[in-house]
Amino acid sequence: MLNAADANFAESLQKDLPQDTLRPAEPRYLEEPRGTWQGNSDWVALPRNVEEVSRIVRACNAAQVGIIPYGGGTGLVGGQVTGSGPAPLIVSLERMSAIRAVHPLENVLIAEAGATLAEVQSAAQEAARLFPLSLASEGTARIGGNLATNAGGVNVLRYGNARELCLGLEAVLPDGQIWHGLRRLRKDNTGYDLRNLLIGAEGTLGIITAAVLKLSPIPAGRGTAIMAVRDPAAALSLLSLARNQMGETVSAFELIDRTGTDFLAETMPQVRLPFDPMPEWIVLTEIGLPRGLEPSEALEDLFAAAAEAELVTDGLIAQSEAQRAEFWTMRESIPLANRHIGSIASHDISVPLGALAEFIRRGKDAICAEGQFRINCFGHVGDGNLHFNIFPPVGRSKKEFSNVKDGLTRIVHDLAHELGGSVSAEHGIGRLKVEDLSRYGDPAKLSAIRAIKDALDPHGIMNPGAVLHRD
Amino acid sequence: MLNAADANFAESLQKDLPQDTLRPAEPRYLEEPRGTWQGNSDWVALPRNVEEVSRIVRACNAAQVGIIPYGGGTGLVGGQVTGSGPAPLIVSLERMSAIRAVHPLENVLIAEAGATLAEVQSAAQEAARLFPLSLASEGTARIGGNLATNAGGVNVLRYGNARELCLGLEAVLPDGQIWHGLRRLRKDNTGYDLRNLLIGAEGTLGIITAAVLKLSPIPAGRGTAIMAVRDPAAALSLLSLARNQMGETVSAFELIDRTGTDFLAETMPQVRLPFDPMPEWIVLTEIGLPRGLEPSEALEDLFAAAAEAELVTDGLIAQSEAQRAEFWTMRESIPLANRHIGSIASHDISVPLGALAEFIRRGKDAICAEGQFRINCFGHVGDGNLHFNIFPPVGRSKKEFSNVKDGLTRIVHDLAHELGGSVSAEHGIGRLKVEDLSRYGDPAKLSAIRAIKDALDPHGIMNPGAVLHRD
Repeated sequence: MLNAADANFAESLQKDLPQDTLRPAEPRYLEEPRGTWQGNSDWVALPRNVEEVSRIVRACNAAQVGIIPYGGGTGLVGGQVTGSGPAPLIVSLERMSAIRAVHPLENVLIAEAGATLAEVQSAAQEAARLFPLSLASEGTARIGGNLATNAGGVNVLRYGNARELCLGLEAVLPDGQIWHGLRRLRKDNTGYDLRNLLIGAEGTLGIITAAVLKLSPIPAGRGTAIMAVRDPAAALSLLSLARNQMGETVSAFELIDRTGTDFLAETMPQVRLPFDPMPEWIVLTEIGLPRGLEPSEALEDLFAAAAEAELVTDGLIAQSEAQRAEFWTMRESIPLANRHIGSIASHDISVPLGALAEFIRRGKDAICAEGQFRINCFGHVGDGNLHFNIFPPVGRSKKEFSNVKDGLTRIVHDLAHELGGSVSAEHGIGRLKVEDLSRYGDPAKLSAIRAIKDALDPHGIMNPGAVLHRD
Repeated sequence: MLNAADANFAESLQKDLPQDTLRPAEPRYLEEPRGTWQGNSDWVALPRNVEEVSRIVRACNAAQVGIIPYGGGTGLVGGQVTGSGPAPLIVSLERMSAIRAVHPLENVLIAEAGATLAEVQSAAQEAARLFPLSLASEGTARIGGNLATNAGGVNVLRYGNARELCLGLEAVLPDGQIWHGLRRLRKDNTGYDLRNLLIGAEGTLGIITAAVLKLSPIPAGRGTAIMAVRDPAAALSLLSLARNQMGETVSAFELIDRTGTDFLAETMPQVRLPFDPMPEWIVLTEIGLPRGLEPSEALEDLFAAAAEAELVTDGLIAQSEAQRAEFWTMRESIPLANRHIGSIASHDISVPLGALAEFIRRGKDAICAEGQFRINCFGHVGDGNLHFNIFPPVGRSKKEFSNVKDGLTRIVHDLAHELGGSVSAEHGIGRLKVEDLSRYGDPAKLSAIRAIKDALDPHGIMNPGAVLHRD
C-alpha cells in the first residue's frame, strides 16, 4: 500500500531541492481532455534536470509514495490522473524542455522530455529535417508523453509510431537510478531492449527525461489529394495501388466517413468541405517524393489507375499550400466536431488491414441493431487504425445513453478482438482500459508484464493504477 | 545451479513427446563459425510445433535444466553453444520451418522460427513483395535466430534491423507458457512491449517459435554503384548528399577499405574487382526508386554532384544484373577473404555517424602504434556500423599474436565507447561479449536487465551464460 504525497512529505522533499521545485498542484494538473477523471494530487514537482528527477524518485520510492509522470496532459485514456487511492506526487517535466542538440548529418535530434511535439518538429525543420510524428494535440503534447504512450498519428504509415522514431533514452528508473541511454546509434545490440520497454509503458516503469529522436530528410516534393472511394474495401485497394506505384512514399492515408463531414457541416460550418454533396467515404492521402518526381503527376496517375479499377468516383489534388491546409484542417477538425456532438462511446481500435472492411461492416451492423445510433468511423486506415465512435440519434443527448455506453464498447472491442485486432491502437491503456487489457490480453503476456512491473518497481510507485491494477 | 540434460532426463522427456523428438546431439550442433567454442550438450530436441516446445520448456524448468534455443547456428558471438557448466538441452527449431501465411495486401508474412532467412525472402518475392533483411549467412540462418539476435545486415539503412521488421511473435516463455502474439497490427498499444524484449534477448528470455514479418513493396527501379571516395569523411558526406537527393530510397551504403580488396586479390582472385588499381576507399551503394525515376540517372546525378563537391574520384554504375551481382559478390566475399588471411581480432562496433571518421582515424593510429598490423575496416557505414578487423603483418600468422588479441580489442572497444558507440552493433553479446557488457554497459540498464531476467526466468534455464553471467 502506498502513502500519500501530503504536505509533510512535500515539505521534507522540498528541503532537498532547489527552491520552488514543489508546488501545490493547480487544477490544470488534475483535469484530462475527456473529463472522465479528476485527479486527487495535492502536490506537483517541477524538476529542472535529470538529477532532480532522480532525487524525487528516490525519495518517493523510499517513502512508498506514488508518482504520476506528467507531460502535456493530452492523453485520452487517463494515464495522467488518478482520482482514487493515496494521492500521488505529480512530476511534471515542463521545465525540462530544451532541445539539447541537433545533428543534421546524422538525422538525429536530442530533446528533453518536456519539449512539446511542435517544438521538436520546429527544431528539426530549422535544420532542414523532418520529425514526422504528427497528431492533433502536437502544440501541447510533450515528447516525453508521446514516447511514454508510443503515440501514433497521421504519418505512422510511412515513418512508424513514436517507438520507431527513438534511438535512445535518458530515464529515471523506479529506484531512482538514472539510465544514461542517449545513444545516437542505428545499431546497438548490447543487452535487452530497455528503450522499447519504457516506450509505451505509460510511465509505469520509469520517467523518460530526454530522448534521441530520429529525423528524416524532408521529401523533395509533397502532394496531397482527397479522393471519393466506393467503400472502405475500395480505400484499401487504393492504398495497395498507391504503394505499388509509389512505394513507401505514401506518408498518410486517412479514411473519412460521411458522418464526420456531416458533423463538421453541423457544428463547424467555417470548415470548408471539398465536395458538395459530400460522398459517403473519402480518403485523404499525402505523398512525399524524392527529387525528379512531380507529386501532382504521381497523384494524377494514381487517380487514373484507380478510376480505371472503379475504386474512386471523384478526386481533388491540392493546388496550393492553402488548399493542402484546408484538406488537413477538415481532417483534424473531426475530433472537435465529435466533441461538439458528444459521443456516447469512443474507440481506438486496430485490425489487420485485410479485416478492416469486415470490421466496419459488421461493427456498423451490430451497433445499428442496438438502436438508432450515428457512427463516425474515421482514422488512419493505412495502419488499420480506426476511431469508431458512437453518437446519439439526432436531437438526443449522450447523457441519455450513459447506461448503454459500456455495452456498446463491449460490442466494438469484442469484434476487434475477434478479428485479431487491438482495443487500443494508439492511445494506450491508461486507466480507461485496464479492464480491457485483462479481458483481451494474452495470459502469458499479462503474466510477463506483471512480473516485469514487480521486478522493476517493487513498491508500485510509478503511475499506480495505470496499465495494470494496483497489487 | 542447473542440472545437466543427461540421458535420464532425455529419456523421461522423450516419453512425453512424439517419437524421435529427442536425439543425441550431432557435432554440427556443437560447433560455431569462429571455432572459439565447442558445445558440451549431449541431447537435442527437435519439436514440430509450439505445444511441443512448451512441453519441453516446462519440463526443463521443472527439472532446472538449461536450454539453448538453436536456429541456423550462424551467430558470431557464441550465443548458440556453451562449453562449460551442466550440459544444456539444445532445442532446435529446424522442424518448424513453415511459412504459415502470406498477406500481400497487408504487406505481412507469418513464418515459423525455423524458416531460413532465404526461404522467407523467397516467399515474399513470390508474393511480389520484399523482405529486406539480408546478410551473408541468409541461406543458413533461421528467422528465429535473426530475431533473437536482432540481426542487421546490408539494408538496415532503409528498412531497419530485424526488430523493425517484426510485428508480432509467438513464443514460449521460460515457465513454458505460450505467448500467442502473432498480431498483424501496425499499431497496438496494449501493455509493455514484450515483442521487443524477446527480440535481441538472444534466447535468454524465451524461445521465439513464429513471427509476423513486415514486407515492403519491391521498389520499381533498382540501381547499384561503386564510387571511389577520398576518405571515410567523404563517404559520409556522399551519404548525406544521396539522402538529400533521394530521401529514404538509399537502401545500402557500404564502405570498403583497400585492405579488404587486397585480401580478395590475394586469397580469392576469382572475385572481380571494379578498378585497377583499387582506390583506398570505395563505397558500394544501392538505391530503390519508385515508378517514374530512372535509377542510373539518379546515380549519375549523385555522382556529378559528388564530383563537383570533390567527394568522389571515380565511379561505376552497374549496367546489368550480372554487374550488380559482381559488385555485391565483392562485398559479400570480404568476410571469407578475412577468414583466409586469419584475423587476430574482429570487431563489430557502431558509433554515431558524426564520430565515424574520427573513429577510423584514431582506431587505425592506435592499432598501428601497437605494431605492424593490417586493418580491414569495412561495413555498413550508413548505420555507423563497422567491422574493424585486425590482421597480422604480411607473412606472419594470427597464432603468433594470440597474446595481444585482448589488448587490441580493448583499444578498439574503449575508443568506440568513448565516442558514444557500441561494442556490439549487430552481432549481439552471446558468450563472447558478456564481459564487455558489464564493462561498458550503463549500470542502471544492467541492473534493470538483471531484474528482468530474474523475474521472467528465475531458475536461469534459458540460454545460461549468454548475455549475462550465470547467477
